[in-house]
Amino acid sequence: MRRSVGSNDRMRGEDSTMEQRLSLVTLGIRDLERAIAFYRALGWEPHPSSVAGEVAFYQTGGIVVALWSRDALSADSGVSDGGGWGGITLAHNVATTAEVDGILVAAAAAGGRIARRAAPTEWGGYSGVFVDLDGHPWEIAVNPGWSLEADGTTRLG
Amino acid sequence: MRRSVGSNDRMRGEDSTMEQRLSLVTLGIRDLERAIAFYRALGWEPHPSSVAGEVAFYQTGGIVVALWSRDALSADSGVSDGGGWGGITLAHNVATTAEVDGILVAAAAAGGRIARRAAPTEWGGYSGVFVDLDGHPWEIAVNPGWSLEADGTTRLG
Repeated sequence: MRRSVGSNDRMRGEDSTMEQRLSLVTLGIRDLERAIAFYRALGWEPHPSSVAGEVAFYQTGGIVVALWSRDALSADSGVSDGGGWGGITLAHNVATTAEVDGILVAAAAAGGRIARRAAPTEWGGYSGVFVDLDGHPWEIAVNPGWSLEADGTTRLG
Repeated sequence: MRRSVGSNDRMRGEDSTMEQRLSLVTLGIRDLERAIAFYRALGWEPHPSSVAGEVAFYQTGGIVVALWSRDALSADSGVSDGGGWGGITLAHNVATTAEVDGILVAAAAAGGRIARRAAPTEWGGYSGVFVDLDGHPWEIAVNPGWSLEADGTTRLG
Protein backbone atom coordinates (compact mmCIF):
# COMPACT_ATOMS: atom_id res chain seq x y z
CA MET A 1 0.00 0.00 0.00
CA ARG A 2 1.06 3.61 -0.37
CA ARG A 3 2.38 5.27 2.70
CA SER A 4 1.19 8.68 3.74
CA VAL A 5 4.51 9.61 5.28
CA GLY A 6 7.78 10.11 3.47
CA SER A 7 10.41 7.44 3.31
CA ASN A 8 13.93 7.74 4.56
CA ASP A 9 16.52 5.33 5.81
CA ARG A 10 14.93 5.07 9.23
CA MET A 11 11.53 4.16 7.88
CA ARG A 12 10.18 0.84 6.69
CA GLY A 13 7.60 0.27 4.04
CA GLU A 14 6.00 -2.91 5.33
CA ASP A 15 2.82 -2.70 7.29
CA SER A 16 4.15 -5.08 9.91
CA THR A 17 7.23 -3.08 10.79
CA MET A 18 7.30 -0.13 13.10
CA GLU A 19 9.11 2.98 12.00
CA GLN A 20 11.99 3.89 14.26
CA ARG A 21 10.34 6.81 16.00
CA LEU A 22 8.24 7.76 18.98
CA SER A 23 5.11 9.95 18.88
CA LEU A 24 4.01 10.44 22.46
CA VAL A 25 5.26 9.91 26.00
CA THR A 26 2.48 9.96 28.59
CA LEU A 27 3.42 10.56 32.21
CA GLY A 28 0.90 9.26 34.71
CA ILE A 29 0.14 11.86 37.39
CA ARG A 30 -1.96 12.04 40.55
CA ASP A 31 -2.95 15.73 40.45
CA LEU A 32 -3.07 17.39 37.05
CA GLU A 33 -3.03 21.01 38.24
CA ARG A 34 -0.09 20.29 40.51
CA ALA A 35 1.79 18.58 37.70
CA ILE A 36 1.07 21.42 35.26
CA ALA A 37 2.32 23.93 37.83
CA PHE A 38 5.54 21.97 38.30
CA TYR A 39 6.31 21.85 34.58
CA ARG A 40 5.21 25.48 34.16
CA ALA A 41 7.82 26.45 36.77
CA LEU A 42 10.39 24.89 34.46
CA GLY A 43 9.04 26.82 31.48
CA TRP A 44 6.61 24.33 29.90
CA GLU A 45 3.20 25.54 28.74
CA PRO A 46 0.36 23.17 27.87
CA HIS A 47 -0.87 23.22 24.28
CA PRO A 48 -4.28 24.86 23.75
CA SER A 49 -5.73 21.46 22.86
CA SER A 50 -5.21 20.33 26.46
CA VAL A 51 -8.42 19.59 28.37
CA ALA A 52 -8.73 21.31 31.76
CA GLY A 53 -8.99 18.83 34.59
CA GLU A 54 -8.36 15.94 32.24
CA VAL A 55 -5.13 15.98 30.25
CA ALA A 56 -2.27 18.34 29.37
CA PHE A 57 -0.38 18.06 26.08
CA TYR A 58 3.00 19.60 25.32
CA GLN A 59 4.54 19.91 21.87
CA THR A 60 8.11 18.84 22.62
CA GLY A 61 10.04 19.07 19.38
CA GLY A 62 8.79 16.38 17.02
CA ILE A 63 6.89 14.45 19.66
CA VAL A 64 4.23 15.07 22.29
CA VAL A 65 4.46 14.74 26.06
CA ALA A 66 1.16 14.29 27.92
CA LEU A 67 0.20 14.41 31.58
CA TRP A 68 -2.76 12.16 32.38
CA SER A 69 -4.21 10.33 35.35
CA ARG A 70 -1.91 7.46 36.29
CA ASP A 71 -4.91 5.23 37.07
CA ALA A 72 -6.51 5.98 33.71
CA LEU A 73 -3.19 5.41 31.94
CA SER A 74 -2.70 2.08 33.68
CA ALA A 75 -6.17 0.91 32.64
CA ASP A 76 -5.76 2.24 29.09
CA SER A 77 -2.37 0.54 28.76
CA GLY A 78 -3.56 -2.83 30.04
CA VAL A 79 -0.94 -2.99 32.77
CA SER A 80 -0.90 -3.38 36.54
CA ASP A 81 0.56 -0.44 38.38
CA GLY A 82 3.66 -1.41 40.36
CA GLY A 83 3.15 1.74 42.38
CA GLY A 84 6.66 3.10 42.04
CA TRP A 85 9.21 3.68 39.33
CA GLY A 86 8.80 1.27 36.46
CA GLY A 87 12.01 1.20 34.48
CA ILE A 88 11.80 4.29 32.27
CA THR A 89 13.90 7.42 32.68
CA LEU A 90 13.70 10.54 30.50
CA ALA A 91 16.62 12.79 29.66
CA HIS A 92 16.95 16.34 28.49
CA ASN A 93 20.26 17.31 26.96
CA VAL A 94 21.63 20.83 27.04
CA ALA A 95 24.74 22.52 25.75
CA THR A 96 26.38 23.74 28.95
CA THR A 97 27.00 22.63 32.51
CA ALA A 98 25.47 25.94 33.66
CA GLU A 99 22.18 24.92 32.07
CA VAL A 100 22.28 21.56 33.87
CA ASP A 101 22.83 23.34 37.16
CA GLY A 102 20.14 25.94 36.48
CA ILE A 103 17.46 23.42 35.55
CA LEU A 104 18.17 21.34 38.65
CA VAL A 105 17.91 24.45 40.83
CA ALA A 106 14.59 25.32 39.19
CA ALA A 107 13.28 21.77 39.59
CA ALA A 108 14.19 21.71 43.28
CA ALA A 109 12.59 25.14 43.79
CA ALA A 110 9.40 23.79 42.20
CA GLY A 111 9.31 20.88 44.66
CA GLY A 112 11.16 18.24 42.66
CA ARG A 113 13.62 15.92 44.34
CA ILE A 114 17.27 16.04 43.34
CA ALA A 115 17.99 12.35 42.96
CA ARG A 116 21.56 12.75 41.74
CA ARG A 117 23.52 15.95 42.10
CA ALA A 118 25.07 17.36 38.94
CA ALA A 119 28.61 16.16 38.44
CA PRO A 120 30.95 14.96 35.70
CA THR A 121 30.00 11.49 34.46
CA GLU A 122 32.15 8.48 33.69
CA TRP A 123 31.12 8.76 30.02
CA GLY A 124 32.73 12.17 29.70
CA GLY A 125 29.66 14.30 30.19
CA TYR A 126 28.04 16.20 33.02
CA SER A 127 24.63 15.42 34.44
CA GLY A 128 22.26 15.31 37.36
CA VAL A 129 18.77 13.94 37.92
CA PHE A 130 15.59 15.43 39.30
CA VAL A 131 12.43 13.47 40.04
CA ASP A 132 9.13 15.23 39.37
CA LEU A 133 6.21 15.37 41.80
CA ASP A 134 4.86 12.07 40.47
CA GLY A 135 8.10 10.11 40.66
CA HIS A 136 9.27 10.45 37.07
CA PRO A 137 13.04 10.98 36.81
CA TRP A 138 14.66 13.36 34.33
CA GLU A 139 18.38 13.30 33.73
CA ILE A 140 19.62 16.74 32.66
CA ALA A 141 22.84 16.24 30.76
CA VAL A 142 25.62 17.60 28.65
CA ASN A 143 26.76 14.79 26.37
CA PRO A 144 29.78 15.81 24.28
CA GLY A 145 29.44 12.64 22.19
CA TRP A 146 26.00 13.54 20.85
CA SER A 147 24.96 16.55 18.78
CA LEU A 148 22.34 19.01 19.93
CA GLU A 149 21.04 20.59 16.75
CA ALA A 150 19.54 24.04 16.25
CA ASP A 151 15.98 22.71 16.22
CA GLY A 152 16.52 20.78 19.47
CA THR A 153 17.17 17.45 17.76
CA THR A 154 19.47 15.12 19.70
CA ARG A 155 21.64 13.23 17.24
CA LEU A 156 23.78 10.18 18.01
CA GLY A 157 27.42 10.78 17.21
CA MET B 1 25.00 33.82 28.18
CA ARG B 2 24.90 32.83 24.56
CA ARG B 3 23.06 29.68 23.77
CA SER B 4 24.57 27.14 21.45
CA VAL B 5 21.21 26.05 20.12
CA GLY B 6 18.86 28.13 18.02
CA SER B 7 15.92 29.92 19.50
CA ASN B 8 12.32 29.42 18.57
CA ASP B 9 9.04 29.84 20.31
CA ARG B 10 9.42 26.61 22.24
CA MET B 11 12.81 27.48 23.63
CA ARG B 12 13.70 29.65 26.57
CA GLY B 13 16.79 31.75 27.01
CA GLU B 14 17.16 31.61 30.76
CA ASP B 15 19.53 29.12 32.29
CA SER B 16 16.95 28.08 34.85
CA THR B 17 14.23 27.11 32.43
CA MET B 18 14.02 23.87 30.59
CA GLU B 19 13.34 23.94 26.88
CA GLN B 20 10.14 22.15 25.95
CA ARG B 21 11.74 19.08 24.44
CA LEU B 22 12.98 15.59 25.25
CA SER B 23 16.36 14.14 24.24
CA LEU B 24 16.38 10.53 25.37
CA VAL B 25 14.00 7.86 26.66
CA THR B 26 15.80 4.97 28.35
CA LEU B 27 13.94 1.70 28.74
CA GLY B 28 15.25 -0.50 31.53
CA ILE B 29 15.65 -4.09 30.38
CA ARG B 30 16.67 -7.41 31.91
CA ASP B 31 18.36 -9.06 28.93
CA LEU B 32 19.88 -6.74 26.33
CA GLU B 33 20.21 -9.25 23.51
CA ARG B 34 16.63 -10.40 24.01
CA ALA B 35 15.39 -6.80 23.99
CA ILE B 36 17.41 -5.95 20.87
CA ALA B 37 15.96 -9.01 19.13
CA PHE B 38 12.42 -7.95 20.03
CA TYR B 39 12.82 -4.44 18.64
CA ARG B 40 14.72 -5.79 15.62
CA ALA B 41 11.70 -7.97 14.83
CA LEU B 42 9.69 -4.73 14.64
CA GLY B 43 12.28 -3.17 12.33
CA TRP B 44 14.49 -1.26 14.74
CA GLU B 45 18.27 -1.41 14.33
CA PRO B 46 20.70 -0.24 17.02
CA HIS B 47 22.95 2.66 16.13
CA PRO B 48 26.64 1.78 15.54
CA SER B 49 27.56 3.67 18.72
CA SER B 50 25.73 1.05 20.77
CA VAL B 51 27.97 -1.02 23.08
CA ALA B 52 27.57 -4.80 22.79
CA GLY B 53 26.42 -6.36 26.03
CA GLU B 54 25.97 -2.95 27.60
CA VAL B 55 23.58 -0.54 25.91
CA ALA B 56 21.68 -0.13 22.64
CA PHE B 57 20.89 3.29 21.17
CA TYR B 58 18.29 4.03 18.51
CA GLN B 59 17.99 7.28 16.59
CA THR B 60 14.23 7.79 16.68
CA GLY B 61 13.48 10.96 14.79
CA GLY B 62 14.82 13.89 16.77
CA ILE B 63 15.38 11.96 19.95
CA VAL B 64 17.16 8.83 21.13
CA VAL B 65 15.72 5.66 22.63
CA ALA B 66 18.12 3.53 24.68
CA LEU B 67 17.91 0.01 26.12
CA TRP B 68 19.96 -0.38 29.30
CA SER B 69 20.01 -2.56 32.38
CA ARG B 70 17.00 -1.76 34.53
CA ASP B 71 19.08 -2.14 37.70
CA ALA B 72 21.76 0.20 36.39
CA LEU B 73 19.11 2.70 35.27
CA SER B 74 17.44 2.62 38.67
CA ALA B 75 20.74 3.31 40.42
CA ASP B 76 21.72 6.00 37.93
CA SER B 77 18.33 7.69 38.27
CA GLY B 78 18.36 7.70 42.07
CA VAL B 79 15.03 5.88 42.32
CA SER B 80 13.76 2.69 43.94
CA ASP B 81 12.43 0.14 41.51
CA GLY B 82 8.74 -0.57 42.08
CA GLY B 83 9.24 -3.75 40.13
CA GLY B 84 6.37 -3.31 37.73
CA TRP B 85 4.97 -0.62 35.49
CA GLY B 86 5.75 2.83 36.79
CA GLY B 87 3.36 5.27 35.19
CA ILE B 88 4.84 5.92 31.75
CA THR B 89 3.40 4.70 28.46
CA LEU B 90 4.89 5.32 25.03
CA ALA B 91 2.90 5.75 21.85
CA HIS B 92 3.69 5.40 18.19
CA ASN B 93 1.28 7.04 15.79
CA VAL B 94 0.72 5.80 12.27
CA ALA B 95 -1.43 6.89 9.35
CA THR B 96 -3.69 3.89 8.86
CA THR B 97 -5.58 1.30 10.86
CA ALA B 98 -3.85 -1.38 8.78
CA GLU B 99 -0.51 -0.23 10.16
CA VAL B 100 -1.84 -0.42 13.73
CA ASP B 101 -3.02 -3.97 13.10
CA GLY B 102 0.23 -4.97 11.39
CA ILE B 103 2.50 -3.68 14.13
CA LEU B 104 0.45 -5.43 16.82
CA VAL B 105 0.65 -8.70 14.88
CA ALA B 106 4.42 -8.29 14.57
CA ALA B 107 4.80 -7.44 18.26
CA ALA B 108 2.80 -10.51 19.28
CA ALA B 109 4.82 -12.70 16.92
CA ALA B 110 8.00 -11.39 18.56
CA GLY B 111 6.74 -12.38 22.00
CA GLY B 112 5.08 -9.16 23.10
CA ARG B 113 1.81 -9.21 24.97
CA ILE B 114 -1.25 -7.62 23.40
CA ALA B 115 -2.54 -5.62 26.34
CA ARG B 116 -5.40 -3.96 24.46
CA ARG B 117 -6.69 -5.20 21.13
CA ALA B 118 -6.86 -2.65 18.32
CA ALA B 119 -10.25 -0.98 18.13
CA PRO B 120 -11.83 2.42 17.56
CA THR B 121 -11.26 4.76 20.51
CA GLU B 122 -13.63 7.11 22.26
CA TRP B 123 -11.49 10.05 21.09
CA GLY B 124 -12.19 9.27 17.46
CA GLY B 125 -9.05 7.33 16.66
CA TYR B 126 -8.04 3.70 16.43
CA SER B 127 -5.46 2.05 18.65
CA GLY B 128 -4.18 -0.98 20.48
CA VAL B 129 -1.39 -1.64 22.97
CA PHE B 130 1.44 -4.12 23.09
CA VAL B 131 3.74 -4.61 26.06
CA ASP B 132 7.38 -5.40 25.28
CA LEU B 133 9.38 -8.22 26.88
CA ASP B 134 10.37 -5.98 29.78
CA GLY B 135 6.90 -4.67 30.59
CA HIS B 136 6.98 -1.37 28.70
CA PRO B 137 3.67 -0.59 26.97
CA TRP B 138 3.41 0.96 23.52
CA GLU B 139 0.12 2.28 22.23
CA ILE B 140 0.00 2.06 18.43
CA ALA B 141 -2.50 4.62 17.24
CA VAL B 142 -4.15 6.51 14.44
CA ASN B 143 -5.08 9.92 15.82
CA PRO B 144 -7.03 11.98 13.28
CA GLY B 145 -6.73 15.07 15.48
CA TRP B 146 -2.94 15.18 15.28
CA SER B 147 -0.71 15.56 12.23
CA LEU B 148 1.87 13.00 11.24
CA GLU B 149 4.39 14.90 9.14
CA ALA B 150 6.65 13.62 6.38
CA ASP B 151 9.69 13.46 8.67
CA GLY B 152 7.78 11.50 11.32
CA THR B 153 7.02 14.51 13.50
CA THR B 154 3.82 14.22 15.51
CA ARG B 155 2.17 17.62 15.69
CA LEU B 156 -0.67 18.63 17.99
CA GLY B 157 -3.67 19.82 16.04
